[in-house]
Formats: sequence, C-alpha cells, structure tokens
Amino acid sequence: MTHPVRIVDADVHNAMRHFDDLLPYLPEPHRSRAADGGMGYPGSGYYSVVGVLRRDATPPGGGPAGSDPAVVRGQLLDPYGIDYCVLVGGGILGVSNLTDPDYACALASAYNDWLIERWLSADRRFRGAAVVSTLDPELAAREIDRVGSHPAIVEVVMGSGARFPYGQRYYHLIYAAAERNNLPVAIHPGTEGAGIANPPTTAGYPTSYIQWHTLLSTNFATHVVSLVCDGVFQKFPKLKFVCIEGGVSWLAPLMWRLDKNYRALRSEVPWLTRMPSEYIKEHVRLTTQPIEEPEDPRDLIRVFEIVDAERTLMYSSDYPHWDFDHPHTAFPKGLSETMRRRIMAENAIELYGLPRTAPDLTDLLRSPDPNGRADEPAGSATVPIGVPDPGE
Amino acid sequence: MTHPVRIVDADVHNAMRHFDDLLPYLPEPHRSRAADGGMGYPGSGYYSVVGVLRRDATPPGGGPAGSDPAVVRGQLLDPYGIDYCVLVGGGILGVSNLTDPDYACALASAYNDWLIERWLSADRRFRGAAVVSTLDPELAAREIDRVGSHPAIVEVVMGSGARFPYGQRYYHLIYAAAERNNLPVAIHPGTEGAGIANPPTTAGYPTSYIQWHTLLSTNFATHVVSLVCDGVFQKFPKLKFVCIEGGVSWLAPLMWRLDKNYRALRSEVPWLTRMPSEYIKEHVRLTTQPIEEPEDPRDLIRVFEIVDAERTLMYSSDYPHWDFDHPHTAFPKGLSETMRRRIMAENAIELYGLPRTAPDLTDLLRSPDPNGRADEPAGSATVPIGVPDPGE
Repeated sequence: MTHPVRIVDADVHNAMRHFDDLLPYLPEPHRSRAADGGMGYPGSGYYSVVGVLRRDATPPGGGPAGSDPAVVRGQLLDPYGIDYCVLVGGGILGVSNLTDPDYACALASAYNDWLIERWLSADRRFRGAAVVSTLDPELAAREIDRVGSHPAIVEVVMGSGARFPYGQRYYHLIYAAAERNNLPVAIHPGTEGAGIANPPTTAGYPTSYIQWHTLLSTNFATHVVSLVCDGVFQKFPKLKFVCIEGGVSWLAPLMWRLDKNYRALRSEVPWLTRMPSEYIKEHVRLTTQPIEEPEDPRDLIRVFEIVDAERTLMYSSDYPHWDFDHPHTAFPKGLSETMRRRIMAENAIELYGLPRTAPDLTDLLRSPDPNGRADEPAGSATVPIGVPDPGE
Repeated sequence: MTHPVRIVDADVHNAMRHFDDLLPYLPEPHRSRAADGGMGYPGSGYYSVVGVLRRDATPPGGGPAGSDPAVVRGQLLDPYGIDYCVLVGGGILGVSNLTDPDYACALASAYNDWLIERWLSADRRFRGAAVVSTLDPELAAREIDRVGSHPAIVEVVMGSGARFPYGQRYYHLIYAAAERNNLPVAIHPGTEGAGIANPPTTAGYPTSYIQWHTLLSTNFATHVVSLVCDGVFQKFPKLKFVCIEGGVSWLAPLMWRLDKNYRALRSEVPWLTRMPSEYIKEHVRLTTQPIEEPEDPRDLIRVFEIVDAERTLMYSSDYPHWDFDHPHTAFPKGLSETMRRRIMAENAIELYGLPRTAPDLTDLLRSPDPNGRADEPAGSATVPIGVPDPGE
C-alpha cells in the first residue's frame, strides 16, 4: 500500500562512526595524511553548553549520533512518518575551510562515495547531498559531474562559512555543474569562522556560542544578497539555492531593504530584470529549523506569506542536533492547510524530484531487507531526480 | 512664542569645508602629519552610483554638502520645522579605522573642538555627538570626560565598522565614561570594511555598493547581540546605545532568534536576568532612516509594535545624504498618533534631554543674529542635557 508523501525532512545529519570510515575511499597520498593526522577540519572554537548532538541519539552500538542508519530510521523516520530525508553530512562540510585544495576535494569525493555506499543504499527514504569543497571550483564541478547522476543524490552542499560571498564569480563553475546536473546547491552553517573562512560576524569573532549561533542568519543574508546582485540567477536560470538551517524570518526585512535599495541603485546591477525579491522567491529555498518563535504566532504566519513560504520553505528537523524541530509541533497554529502541505512535503518533492507517493510504513517494516530497505530501489522516482515537477 | 517640540532629527551630517579646518585644533606632531598627508581615513572602496551626498545640498559658497550651517538651517531645519537635530559628523568616524591610536584620538578631539566652535554655537537647534576613536578606549574615555559636560554635546558616536563586536570588554571603558557623563553611545555606518575594521560582511567583501549598503544591517545585528550577551547593559544599567542609520525591521526577527536561543543557552550568559529582547527594548535606540518600505505598510507598523518603537525609535533624515527621509512622508499611513509623536520627537527628547518646547520659527527668523541664532544660548535645556527626563 502507498500513501501520498506527507513529510520530507530536508536537513538530517549523517555521521561517520570514526574518521577511519573514509580511509578506504581515499587515494594516496591523502589516505596516509588522513590516517596519520585525522581529517584536520579546523573548528571555529565555539562551545555549546547544551552540546551539538542529542545525547539520546547516540547509537547503542557506539559511534556518534547520526552514525547508524538503523538508529536514524528507528528514531526519526519511522516514528515521525518521514517519507524522505536529505542527508547533508556534518563535519565533512569543513572541507571548504582547509588550506589544501587537493586534499580537501579528495576528502569530499571519499565522503560522497561513502555516503552512497553506506547510506543511500540502506533505506529507500534516504536521499543524499553531495559535498564539495569550494577550495577549487573546477574540481568541485568535476565532483558534481562524477556523482550528480546518482539517482539518490539530490543536492550539492557546501558549508556556509566562506571567504567571499557565494554570488561571486569564483564559484560560478560550481553553479554551472549543479545546473547541468539538475541539482540545487545548498549551504549549511557550522563552518562560520573556521579555518580560512571569514570571521563569523561583520565585526569578527563574538564571545560565545549563543552569539555565534544567533548571528548565523546574517551570513545567510550575505550570501543571498550576493547571489542575487552578482547575477547568479540571471546567469543560471534553472539554479535553485537552498539555505539550510539559517532561519527564515530574517528574509522578510532583507527583501524589503534590498528591493528599496534596488530602486535607487539598480544601475549597479544592470543584469537584473526583476526586483531582487522576485529572484529570491523563485530561486532561493529555505529549511524551517530552527524556526523562529515570536510571542504572537500570527507574526510567523505573516512572515511565511511575505517570503512566499508556499514556494520557498521546506520542513527540516535537523536531527540529531540539539535543537531538533518536531514535525507536528514546530509550526504555529493557524497555518493554512495548503501552506502546511507545501512546507512539509511538496516544495521538497518538487525541488528534489521525489516520488509523490511512498510505501506505507507497515510495508516497509515487513520488508525482507534486514535494514528495513524496501524492494523498490532508491531513486525510482516518478519524475527524474532533480528535475522540477512540471506542475511546479 | 513657543510650541511643543514636534520634530527632532537624530542623524544629520555636518562636514568640514576642507580638512584644513581641523588643523588649528590639532597639536603637533599630528598637525604636521595631517597638513602633509591629509586625514588619512581609509575608505572601504565602495562606489555609489547615485553619490553619497545630495547634489542640491552643496553650499553656494563652496565646500561639500553639510559644510555650511546656514545651508543646513535653510534647507533642513527651517522648511521641515525641525526643532532640534543631532550632528553626528561624517568622514571623521574613520578615526576608528586608522592604525595609530594617538593620531586617531587627536583627530577626534580636534573634530569635537571644531564641532563645538563652528556648529554648536551657530544655531540653538544644533546638538552634537562627540566622536571618539576606538583605537584606545582609555583615551576615548578621557575625551568623553573632556567634552561630555558641554551642554550641547548629547551623544558619543563611533563608526559601526569594527574589529570586534561592540559588547566586548575592550570597549567597556568607553561605556563607563559615557554612563558617568549621562550620554548615550551611538554607532553610525560607513566605515564597514575600511582600514583595520573587519570585512563588511560575514563572508568578506561583497562586489558592489548596493550589497554593502543592504548588508549594513547585519553589522548592527552583530553589535546588538554582542552588547546584550556580553553583559554591557547589566554592567552599565544607565547606558543607552543608539543604532543610527542601520535600518529597523531586522531587529524583530533578531529578537525572536536571540530570545529562542537564550531559552536553551542561557547558562552561557548567566549575568542576564531578563530576556535579551527586554534589554534591547530598554537600552537600544534606533533611528528611522533608511526606513524599510514593505509593499503592505501594515507590516512596518507591526514591526514598530514588535520592536516597541514607542520607546526605541527616533526619526532621522540623514541629511544631506542621498537617501534622505522626509519627516512628513517617510512613515506608513495608519501609524497611531501616539507612536508618531514618540518617534518624531519624544523618544529623542527623553534620550538627549532636550527641551520640550521650542521657539517658533518666526521668532528665530527675527533673531538679530545674522546666522539666525536665537538669543537663548545653546544648551539652555529645561532638563539637564543628557539626563533622561524623569517622566521617562
């Protein structure tokens, strides 16, 4: 039996049990380097008093939270009825914060091979984001061409911590590759201020994690303004750009401010033919977690209307991170049924080219595969992976 | 005849006719350096296609816009019925972007002496912000003590471009001095990314002025989060902090995000005893220009309610900059009369300790002073300058 897809989770973190997991996928000399020195991702030095990972998500068999597909299934997908989820990695996003582009790109490739082998074949509900390093956009583009046609790879993901704004020409090879592979490009926070990335705020390094985390949205604002004004969406008209875990409500005033400035300063960006906010609504997608919680929930609903959430917003849980958002309780009362459906599933179905129906969980649980995998192979989508549904 | 004060303009730019204007106020060796090399403020390199100054504000007698008190009077104060305005300088804010603290602080002192002599005695409606350089907080504190008791100095101002967020301990001597002089501390944009300041965005240098300008709000967000979380308002309970020209609407989602994070992460900031948004509403003030202009003006009114504009927001024109906001047309229809009155005058009266009544313009114009100065000396306030009205 099948049912219409009800929930797609656009931000789930899969982890390695140990960094040794990637060694078999690394060529020399990178394998020896990683074996000797570890991955070497630089950190930003911020410490969260509540931890970053849910303690109850630690696999019983050991390893960090998110490192066992069976636990992700049993703790997230099954109980919440999540029909598909996008695995976006974790620490591996630090490959854009290293200094050595060859090593960084080799790590990204090894991760993607491991992702496909360990995760994307483990459950038909898993979809994957291919990680690239921005240190060498040409190598990143090759990596997208290498893995982009895998039926369960539905996205390209990069850390949002960056040396320059993501609209600048340096990155355009990456967007060209993503566009020709019909894949959206996503950014995810966590690498702000780490290694070669710019300091995490407009005034350098704030004192504590609460400040660093609160101000992550300002980095997403930076990238969105750059993508629009540097003409990325004019140059790559099929490209979609996904802001994962950067918050939502900051986008409304940003669009007001950018549109106002555009009226006066549009001769600086003569390639734009529409208001900046129109490019944003067409090309930018956001995930919900961590959703803002204003005192009056109607304020959040109004924000959803302003940012055109029916087109732009996708549910995400951020499992297994500390600030997990429950799919049934994270949203304000009073959201229209249409908007809720679009946020919970349809925007993601269209963006990622997911099937519109999913097998019932009872059938999945009866699956002969001990990993709970159904007979249907991953990626047997009713529309080609990554191609927007024609009904969009 | 007098009338109740109707309009206070919290952001007007006074300029030097030529940098030579400051030479008489500079001691050696700084005078020789400035005479030889100019002020030397580093720029950020951004170019506005519309210019930064209103072309129609250039004084008939020469010099840049904003350099002739008579023109400011005749083009701004008289025609718009502005009862008081705060002069916040301009390029001089670059003294926090230089490398040499002694030179930078000497320039700031020279500017403040020039401000008092050339401007604050020229019209009873002029009030001044004393400029300090952040390069040496101890010297900045001494400068505040030196000029802070002048009756027409109502504020301390610094450029918002900074090496580290304004809540950090490095700056606390400045806040201690401002508090003991009953002066609010203001920041003003323009120096983001210039000289020793941090790059102007979270991802370095954006491509164009429209991006740089749009993202200035993210720098104000950074400083506000830092001021609250680093405990400045707990340590300096009488301190008010004014965000000039940084926009308004970004503050609403920032408060939501910061309050939400505080619920989970408050043990990182154990000195806070209230929600972060409560500190913001009590201690942070914003000026209106450039006000956001959402398609539906009710959205801006709702933002005003959320940020408690009746307490926090002050009208500003930004004269003579290109994006001047007219006091009679800049605000959305539907604003309550109370809120409008608070924004147009009362919040500023309370913050700056201004008189509650002002002479009628006809009386001013009949003044025997050829500069239009009334008999009443500047600073003859009905409450002490800089001391909040007891009714606040």
